[in-house]
Amino acid sequence: MNHNLEQQLKFLIEIDKMKNIQRQTLLADKSRRETDAEHSWHFALMAWILFEYAGIDGIDIDRVIKMALVHDLVEIYAGDTFAFDAAANELKDDREQQAASKLFSLLPEEQGLLLRSLWEEFDAMQTPDSIYAAAIDRLQPFINNYLTDGHTWVLGNVTVEQVYKRIEPVKQALPALWGFVEKVILESCEKGYIRS
Amino acid sequence: MNHNLEQQLKFLIEIDKMKNIQRQTLLADKSRRETDAEHSWHFALMAWILFEYAGIDGIDIDRVIKMALVHDLVEIYAGDTFAFDAAANELKDDREQQAASKLFSLLPEEQGLLLRSLWEEFDAMQTPDSIYAAAIDRLQPFINNYLTDGHTWVLGNVTVEQVYKRIEPVKQALPALWGFVEKVILESCEKGYIRS
Repeated sequence: MNHNLEQQLKFLIEIDKMKNIQRQTLLADKSRRETDAEHSWHFALMAWILFEYAGIDGIDIDRVIKMALVHDLVEIYAGDTFAFDAAANELKDDREQQAASKLFSLLPEEQGLLLRSLWEEFDAMQTPDSIYAAAIDRLQPFINNYLTDGHTWVLGNVTVEQVYKRIEPVKQALPALWGFVEKVILESCEKGYIRS
Repeated sequence: MNHNLEQQLKFLIEIDKMKNIQRQTLLADKSRRETDAEHSWHFALMAWILFEYAGIDGIDIDRVIKMALVHDLVEIYAGDTFAFDAAANELKDDREQQAASKLFSLLPEEQGLLLRSLWEEFDAMQTPDSIYAAAIDRLQPFINNYLTDGHTWVLGNVTVEQVYKRIEPVKQALPALWGFVEKVILESCEKGYIRS
């Protein structure tokens, strides 16, 4: 077998570990926490289905879908960082950069750099593709939170300001959904899922 | 909220159930069975990473990735059918067509038809995209089977002929991987994972 192919198969086996990384978000039926692999799949499909509502020009939806597939891979080594844990998020960048170096170097160089650059673009949120991707990445757990009695909002003892800050990319990226977002937040405050 | 968007959000919530559909395949670490959502994510990424080895002309990898995302959605209502259960597979088509009608009609008509046609194309295995997709869909559990002491091969008391028949699309779609496939099958026979 050629060396590149051997590296690629090793990488594809290594990333099976995405099925072991648990997020704080529950499944909609509340039966358990979802895994990074499940979230990445849901994110990719949601980005595609809602693309007609994109409020930013110049988005390449096929690139966004690929971004969704790779955006959490570094968590195989860096772990999932709870969105509403400020202290953990301060240390996140270094940990994830180290994880990226370890993981993407499993691949042939050019391909590893391509995946890493997609992940870095996603993380920096400066391009149309990555702003749209970030909005979907936050919308998916936002909806599941609402469906599970505000699970992670309650867990993080989260304020309405924190929730608005986290979900804000939706305003620009999916303006047609902003009314829905506001309605969910209002109801979640009324139900006591979010501190207002 | 407009009616289309309402339908799309309902669909995106409904497909959370893909995280509850368990396949026979185990995770590589043998800790539990993988879910349809996890498999779909792994399939999409594997199709992309191995694309340089495609042995068929005219494949649109972005379409294949979308096919991966939707290829098992009907199992939300039809359930996962074990690849090596011949009797269950005879009844599969009707069950999955009914499931498709129920699921894809949640979406606005045009979008529902687009997703359904992608799934039907995948299932029929007659186009370059769908032959390549089928090869990856089979390669992913093939590798996990080998890593988990032949879990589903042992479960299905499977013969070497059955394994070759199931993995055959790889020969045409990913000829560079055929040597790897043969080596895995040979070793799996020697280890008693597959009946020879």
